[in-house]
Amino acid sequence: MNDSSSRNFPQPVAGTVVPRFGDVATFMRLPLFRNPADVEIGMVGVPWDGGTTNRPGARHGPRQMRDLSTMMRRVHHVTRVAPYELAKCGDLGDAPVNPASLEDSLERIGHFYAKLHEAGAIPLSAGGDHLITLPIMRGIAKGQAPLGMVHFDAHSDTWDTYFGGYKYTHGTPFRRAVEEGLLDPKRVVQIGIRGSLYKRDDNDWAVEQGMRVITIEEYFDLGVDKVIAEARRVVGDGPT
Amino acid sequence: MNDSSSRNFPQPVAGTVVPRFGDVATFMRLPLFRNPADVEIGMVGVPWDGGTTNRPGARHGPRQMRDLSTMMRRVHHVTRVAPYELAKCGDLGDAPVNPASLEDSLERIGHFYAKLHEAGAIPLSAGGDHLITLPIMRGIAKGQAPLGMVHFDAHSDTWDTYFGGYKYTHGTPFRRAVEEGLLDPKRVVQIGIRGSLYKRDDNDWAVEQGMRVITIEEYFDLGVDKVIAEARRVVGDGPT
Amino acid sequence: MNDSSSRNFPQPVAGTVVPRFGDVATFMRLPLFRNPADVEIGMVGVPWDGGTTNRPGARHGPRQMRDLSTMMRRVHHVTRVAPYELAKCGDLGDAPVNPASLEDSLERIGHFYAKLHEAGAIPLSAGGDHLITLPIMRGIAKGQAPLGMVHFDAHSDTWDTYFGGYKYTHGTPFRRAVEEGLLDPKRVVQIGIRGSLYKRDDNDWAVEQGMRVITIEEYFDLGVDKVIAEARRVVGDGPT
Amino acid sequence: MNDSSSRNFPQPVAGTVVPRFGDVATFMRLPLFRNPADVEIGMVGVPWDGGTTNRPGARHGPRQMRDLSTMMRRVHHVTRVAPYELAKCGDLGDAPVNPASLEDSLERIGHFYAKLHEAGAIPLSAGGDHLITLPIMRGIAKGQAPLGMVHFDAHSDTWDTYFGGYKYTHGTPFRRAVEEGLLDPKRVVQIGIRGSLYKRDDNDWAVEQGMRVITIEEYFDLGVDKVIAEARRVVGDGPT
Amino acid sequence: MNDSSSRNFPQPVAGTVVPRFGDVATFMRLPLFRNPADVEIGMVGVPWDGGTTNRPGARHGPRQMRDLSTMMRRVHHVTRVAPYELAKCGDLGDAPVNPASLEDSLERIGHFYAKLHEAGAIPLSAGGDHLITLPIMRGIAKGQAPLGMVHFDAHSDTWDTYFGGYKYTHGTPFRRAVEEGLLDPKRVVQIGIRGSLYKRDDNDWAVEQGMRVITIEEYFDLGVDKVIAEARRVVGDGPT
Amino acid sequence: MNDSSSRNFPQPVAGTVVPRFGDVATFMRLPLFRNPADVEIGMVGVPWDGGTTNRPGARHGPRQMRDLSTMMRRVHHVTRVAPYELAKCGDLGDAPVNPASLEDSLERIGHFYAKLHEAGAIPLSAGGDHLITLPIMRGIAKGQAPLGMVHFDAHSDTWDTYFGGYKYTHGTPFRRAVEEGLLDPKRVVQIGIRGSLYKRDDNDWAVEQGMRVITIEEYFDLGVDKVIAEARRVVGDGPT
Repeated sequence: MNDSSSRNFPQPVAGTVVPRFGDVATFMRLPLFRNPADVEIGMVGVPWDGGTTNRPGARHGPRQMRDLSTMMRRVHHVTRVAPYELAKCGDLGDAPVNPASLEDSLERIGHFYAKLHEAGAIPLSAGGDHLITLPIMRGIAKGQAPLGMVHFDAHSDTWDTYFGGYKYTHGTPFRRAVEEGLLDPKRVVQIGIRGSLYKRDDNDWAVEQGMRVITIEEYFDLGVDKVIAEARRVVGDGPT
Repeated sequence: MNDSSSRNFPQPVAGTVVPRFGDVATFMRLPLFRNPADVEIGMVGVPWDGGTTNRPGARHGPRQMRDLSTMMRRVHHVTRVAPYELAKCGDLGDAPVNPASLEDSLERIGHFYAKLHEAGAIPLSAGGDHLITLPIMRGIAKGQAPLGMVHFDAHSDTWDTYFGGYKYTHGTPFRRAVEEGLLDPKRVVQIGIRGSLYKRDDNDWAVEQGMRVITIEEYFDLGVDKVIAEARRVVGDGPT
Repeated sequence: MNDSSSRNFPQPVAGTVVPRFGDVATFMRLPLFRNPADVEIGMVGVPWDGGTTNRPGARHGPRQMRDLSTMMRRVHHVTRVAPYELAKCGDLGDAPVNPASLEDSLERIGHFYAKLHEAGAIPLSAGGDHLITLPIMRGIAKGQAPLGMVHFDAHSDTWDTYFGGYKYTHGTPFRRAVEEGLLDPKRVVQIGIRGSLYKRDDNDWAVEQGMRVITIEEYFDLGVDKVIAEARRVVGDGPT
Repeated sequence: MNDSSSRNFPQPVAGTVVPRFGDVATFMRLPLFRNPADVEIGMVGVPWDGGTTNRPGARHGPRQMRDLSTMMRRVHHVTRVAPYELAKCGDLGDAPVNPASLEDSLERIGHFYAKLHEAGAIPLSAGGDHLITLPIMRGIAKGQAPLGMVHFDAHSDTWDTYFGGYKYTHGTPFRRAVEEGLLDPKRVVQIGIRGSLYKRDDNDWAVEQGMRVITIEEYFDLGVDKVIAEARRVVGDGPT
Repeated sequence: MNDSSSRNFPQPVAGTVVPRFGDVATFMRLPLFRNPADVEIGMVGVPWDGGTTNRPGARHGPRQMRDLSTMMRRVHHVTRVAPYELAKCGDLGDAPVNPASLEDSLERIGHFYAKLHEAGAIPLSAGGDHLITLPIMRGIAKGQAPLGMVHFDAHSDTWDTYFGGYKYTHGTPFRRAVEEGLLDPKRVVQIGIRGSLYKRDDNDWAVEQGMRVITIEEYFDLGVDKVIAEARRVVGDGPT
Repeated sequence: MNDSSSRNFPQPVAGTVVPRFGDVATFMRLPLFRNPADVEIGMVGVPWDGGTTNRPGARHGPRQMRDLSTMMRRVHHVTRVAPYELAKCGDLGDAPVNPASLEDSLERIGHFYAKLHEAGAIPLSAGGDHLITLPIMRGIAKGQAPLGMVHFDAHSDTWDTYFGGYKYTHGTPFRRAVEEGLLDPKRVVQIGIRGSLYKRDDNDWAVEQGMRVITIEEYFDLGVDKVIAEARRVVGDGPT
């Protein structure tokens, strides 16, 4: 097998040709496409942090990730896999957002992903705060929900409400997703859960729904290999 | 006149007694009161930036201002005025906010200021983004609206809508305030207006309503003294 | 067992009620008490770094820790222990200090802790440089010295003098404490000691006094569980 | 005159439509063109600082300027001029550079600008260090050299050599440009010159060639209006 | 007059010979002398901030100033004066200090400057906090006290005591210097005084002693030329 | 054995005598020597990053390392080895560089090290980017090339060319060193190699030449002790 791709997919610009600090920054130095039908895997920014109840700023994430992604090269040094030869990848720009309205942002993001899903593209998303996962799941649900999920996080993000009943924040997306039938809790594994709780039963809802919660303590007890095996067992063969 | 106040008001803790970096940080090192009836002038934080369409972070403003306000001393070095002898001042904590809901935040802030106004306290507020001025004005309107205003800013903040019709952002508070009868545009002076526009007529609405807009260019042409005189003329004797 | 405390102790303000960046910052978002008799455990800041022979700034520690402590929640996610239900906790403000006098600061800090100890409160202190431990021990010595100690640090802090005979710096507190009868060296364990030495015998004094010094190398050899067991063995049942 | 352009040029994306932190960052949020024939004015990055004898980093300038240029709006608030209606503007990406070779970089940059000049585009460049001006001038010289120049800087950048005879650094571009016949020194005005010198005669060469050097001291003596008039007088009507 | 010095004094290393970021950083890139008799003007660091009642860190000042002073060149661009040709200048290293003792530091610094003064060198000092001026004056007093002084600062630094009677802080050096007969207050001018006061009469002592206090407000009213003339008038011909 | 050295070598200044932030910063607070014959081990700065194809700034490394090295003490806390008693060590200043010429810099650095090698000093170098290793090897080759090497890095630095044939960058020094007969590839071990590749065979050249490449994955599989043994085996007894 040689380095030239048989299907002639766009490849990241090499740092030996254009220095990494050069030119307009796109995800992985790939071309920018505006039509999701033009790619198999589309990288999307979601510059929105309106669900954040604490420190904001994740809205600046997509631009920073575009800039820093120009540091990456094409081939993994041990497996020698070159992902960009296996699928046609591209930058699809940012999902539309409205920093002045949480509801409108969820609507816009969901609509953007629904169109992308209809066009047959698989999204790889860069946020933004954790709440963006909800409209993304809504957008890509058609024909594949309820989904399984492998979730790496300190928090379960299955709290119910904040500030006296508000149901949409960066701490609630997966509770909403289960309620809406987007996630199959029995096929969800949450890895690395840690950090203090507001109430003793904060994480109980997730467990009661059937999610497999692996705390960071259990993670270190099991070791990486067993955690990977457990994650594979939980999500099974369904769409994840 | 000597340094001890005849009315025995709380005075900022002196840096020659407790170093400035010491103890819990309150505005101006004044006592914290939870009942607005306990002060004549109450300093209030409004830790909210949900109306910001660009860079967030102003929600952290009140804490930072409390910390930095411990650098101030009591007496102006030229006029020798000691403000804390002239009125009973205190820190009233923060207005309640909801980072996950713009509407609820405007509601909570307005309600907090209405109670403060009823109690007879005069607020001095530390934001927070510019939109917080709207619920503050709503809260203190009773018995004194429409208000005059001396506004120092780069922007007129009288734009109409963003993102396809959204009426509440950090760029629209004074248009809403005029529409709601909170502000008397003929008694508003905006000083220092500058910066490029989206459309040629962005600032025309303010002028058409009768606001006196002093661009930064006119400010330098007039000089400080004439600008102060003009501001006094515009707002007149009414509540401002 | 439910979440409401039988003894109705003050609990930290939850981030689901007041956002973490909101209001005046106290330790753990607990109420501020000025009388140590009002609490069982009192959190105290000691904003002083006058014993520092290298980079200063620890005097700003207490304010920063108050600010950052608002990130914590109430219940441990694995043990489900909620410390604020087990004892009445509160912020007791800062101990008095004098940045222009080392001697006076040691005096003021010691006096503050002696009063706190008399009032029956147990202090939890946030410095400040390492020398503050000396006046704290002096303050709480009455009725319980000599104390045992579990000490986590890179350095033994049992050096003798600096700069030609100066006995009070951040490198000497535990030598002074042993000399003054505040610490029982045979019930002291120092964990994690590392970093180069000025002289070969810098750490010998501690060992000769009977302290158990566990270098970072020994720590990794033993593992966490054995180090905990060893620490328990060393300090025994006496006041620590 | 209304806001829609009669010639339908691309306009910067408005912050009221897509927030300023959103999407791929191009200069002024204009479209990216790869063919200079597609624009009348082309914004070009030159990410190169290999001529810098002191602190490097200007190679990161173009990306940062693209990011920050998304803060600008379309219309000047006093003159109401909207530049993007007067000419077809676009981002032309970056000129090619070679961080490992000064000579090759000068060659590549010069060649890029020559093609751009042939295509009829007028470049607006974002560096990069001061030496990039030399290959840019070489590239656009055809048919218009020797050029006049209005130069705002602390330094004259007309030093001769560094490090024992090296002729190409960020301190020498305009001496080389005069020697190569690219600049007409009698039509050059340097405004704001200041800062200490290595030798008493460091700035004498510029004056001897006929450049009009206005030090920062003379700038404040003359005032802005007279400096502008003097600059217009020096450069006259020729290409500048 | 040419660039080579008739007396062959050490000259700063030029940035055209060794780049500014190169080699060990000394003040102005001059040689390091340990014997004050070897120079006419000796640059001295005083890395001490133990008199600071607020934010520490000035102890790091001398190293940072050595690093940044490598940015300077030799000749003033307008006056064409080259200071290093007029006197033999050098870096004399740092005065000894004791970060754990205010009293010992004043002693050590004073002794260092006394030896330097005896050796006939004129010091140029880089602090450090304002209190270091007191031991410097003590050191160089012999044969020239009481001195005049031109003092640029926001604060008069003539406060009496802090923290209940402590006489030595960064806010008190010039009061102590007058009391000790080191300064002749009638030949002292303080320029730029501003900032709020603890008490109305904080600056009265200075005025009563005969110091000429020019507030920043008066500075802008008078203009630079008149302030310089006034300063010259106040200090007269005596040692300053 | 006591702390005083039998051979009276210069020792680092102790932080208990002069605080660590004090005086001119040299490597390890050792004396500065300009003649390499005066030391057995000479610490050298090489303030040059002209071979860097990505983020520059390593040219500031030597000054920063001098500053930070003042944090070190003399004796290892476990082994109790005091290196400065075993050999005469000193700071030899910086190698000469030319930020405007890659070729000239390689020449100057090589020449500096050749003289140092002739004088019998062993250099310990602080860069600067990775390319400086090439001229250092050239300088010290006489009488000992080809050398063995223990190389800790993420990258093999044995790429061939950049930017269309440029052979000298921070990614190519060890390929050039093998080609020039400076390195014996069979006695080279590279430890910690990781990070994605431009092409599948980027690291193959090193392996084909006989270098032992231990990826970070193999490093964790083997463990520290086996990696050290393997490194000893590879380099053997020859000069390394």
